[in-house]
Amino acid sequence: MIEDKNTSRTSLSELGEFGLIDHLTKNFEIQQESTILGIGDDAAVLDFKDKKCVLTTDLLIEGVHFDLSYVPLKHLGYKAVMVNLSDVYAMNATATQITVSIAVSNRFPLEALEELYAGIETAAKIYNVDVVGGDTTSSTTGLMISITAIGQADKDSLVYRDGAGENDLLVVSGDLGAAYLGLQVLEREKQVYKANPNSQPDLDQYSYLIERQLKPEARKDIKELLKALDVKPTSMIDISDGLSSEVIHLCTKSKVGVNLYEEKIPLDPAVISTCEEFKLNSTTVALSGGEDYELLFTIKQEDFPKIKANPNLTVIGHITDEKSGIGLVTRANEKIQLVAQGWNPIKE
Amino acid sequence: MIEDKNTSRTSLSELGEFGLIDHLTKNFEIQQESTILGIGDDAAVLDFKDKKCVLTTDLLIEGVHFDLSYVPLKHLGYKAVMVNLSDVYAMNATATQITVSIAVSNRFPLEALEELYAGIETAAKIYNVDVVGGDTTSSTTGLMISITAIGQADKDSLVYRDGAGENDLLVVSGDLGAAYLGLQVLEREKQVYKANPNSQPDLDQYSYLIERQLKPEARKDIKELLKALDVKPTSMIDISDGLSSEVIHLCTKSKVGVNLYEEKIPLDPAVISTCEEFKLNSTTVALSGGEDYELLFTIKQEDFPKIKANPNLTVIGHITDEKSGIGLVTRANEKIQLVAQGWNPIKE
Repeated sequence: MIEDKNTSRTSLSELGEFGLIDHLTKNFEIQQESTILGIGDDAAVLDFKDKKCVLTTDLLIEGVHFDLSYVPLKHLGYKAVMVNLSDVYAMNATATQITVSIAVSNRFPLEALEELYAGIETAAKIYNVDVVGGDTTSSTTGLMISITAIGQADKDSLVYRDGAGENDLLVVSGDLGAAYLGLQVLEREKQVYKANPNSQPDLDQYSYLIERQLKPEARKDIKELLKALDVKPTSMIDISDGLSSEVIHLCTKSKVGVNLYEEKIPLDPAVISTCEEFKLNSTTVALSGGEDYELLFTIKQEDFPKIKANPNLTVIGHITDEKSGIGLVTRANEKIQLVAQGWNPIKE
Repeated sequence: MIEDKNTSRTSLSELGEFGLIDHLTKNFEIQQESTILGIGDDAAVLDFKDKKCVLTTDLLIEGVHFDLSYVPLKHLGYKAVMVNLSDVYAMNATATQITVSIAVSNRFPLEALEELYAGIETAAKIYNVDVVGGDTTSSTTGLMISITAIGQADKDSLVYRDGAGENDLLVVSGDLGAAYLGLQVLEREKQVYKANPNSQPDLDQYSYLIERQLKPEARKDIKELLKALDVKPTSMIDISDGLSSEVIHLCTKSKVGVNLYEEKIPLDPAVISTCEEFKLNSTTVALSGGEDYELLFTIKQEDFPKIKANPNLTVIGHITDEKSGIGLVTRANEKIQLVAQGWNPIKE
């Protein structure tokens, strides 16, 4: 738990708002040519010249999107950046800047925010984005993080959700379901810890799952990979809420149907074994788990030879006409209607 | 109180996240040429061509930045947009787009969010900005609003905080202190209401103050006015935390000092009379009150004839060398050091 981890505790009120912002952002360096002015004025100034600007934003709330009893703040900062960059990459664009706003209650000492910002800084460095602004304020209860990510792309390289055409192939990067199972493992350990604070968990066999949950990586590489393979997707979306939900978005926007093949869904061996242990259906986990931050896209059939040997990419289905519906073809070769059961943050 | 006002109550969970976003954003129209794609994909797509892009973000938290017991949600939505546009205008830029993220607890029915979005929509229409994205999620307690505003400007017309030079004149738009006093009046009425819910307040004499607090207007007009007067400010900042704090920011960034004349600070007659009633010093209120959303800027002395007859603009001081310090020249002609006592959202 966050309050116990820090031996040194500096109250946020000692610094004040501007002192706090200065302190937390002093290590952020400007790397992008498009950043004319970063933090320090009323607004940042960016210059995209003849590129298009891509803009996306996400809000993460303690107790809704994350649980600080098992999420280290540094990982949380890192993940909050990933969640946003993933949306930029899903446009087939290059991420260039982010803004970071946080609201935090006074139970957090300065050292906790330093951890959070260290994660943000690490993500920004690795993914080569500039932190150009934000806001820091107090909250009456927990921690909230609002990140906006900006990217750029040539007009012709942008990929939207609505471009999938009949007979296109449906492709996914990486594998699915691990992040959700990582969360299940962490939730279970939390209950064990509550019952017996001296228990020593052995989480080695779950390390891939836990890493996918706590420190996901946005697929910056897919744009570059596809460019190298000379493939331009016809449509693309990132998988944040679960494969099922994203397939439905893509098909609805593109006014097409799909046959998605259950047996083709890429699963890590740790997903399969942990599903057995937790008595969960691995297909359901992949379809509805969410937080994988992989990319789902469609390509023309003629591009199949270019991608088929690539271990990062798996063809999981093909696009049909709209009337044929959005269907999952099961291992038993039955076609069932896909239903979005992705994670719903608006719940009772 | 918000729960009592709505006879019709629709639970947010009935709609789900995507249904809610669709419902709330269905009236938003795209007006700006620079908006290529608004809401509906992983990210918005904007095109600033040869203009620079300006970007700013603010986070508003229930219980910290606003009290829903006297702030109507429609006004809150409107104000949240103003707070951000003000930062764009303080760059001497034109606001073009906003993103709106909200986190909301389930005590809010759909009808409450409709009110909030109606205010956002009204502001977007009047100020000619497109709503191009956002996020909607649940919170464990109150309401949070995170808005990012984007603007554009020619490189040569941008005005930063660091350009003030010795002998420049310090100018402020509008008048100061009214928003803070409006808040004091509303706080007092809240206490009266608590003691006697049947009391009928007569707030006519405070209408200007209350409007400045509940429905501030960002100074979109100042950029146009200054252009028409052929004046380019040497530095500019918006007044959100209080005149004192902003003067210190401007001088520190520009590495200059200032003589700010107490007698020149523009005050509305309602500010003066209400300060007397509340036994507050009107200069202190103007210096530290905050939330005025006026623009503070410096101009070359030679531009003085161009602005001196304008009722929107008041010269309140002149820039000195850095060594002379940041000083307030009182009505008694004493120079005292200015101290930032603006509102601090990071407090115990």
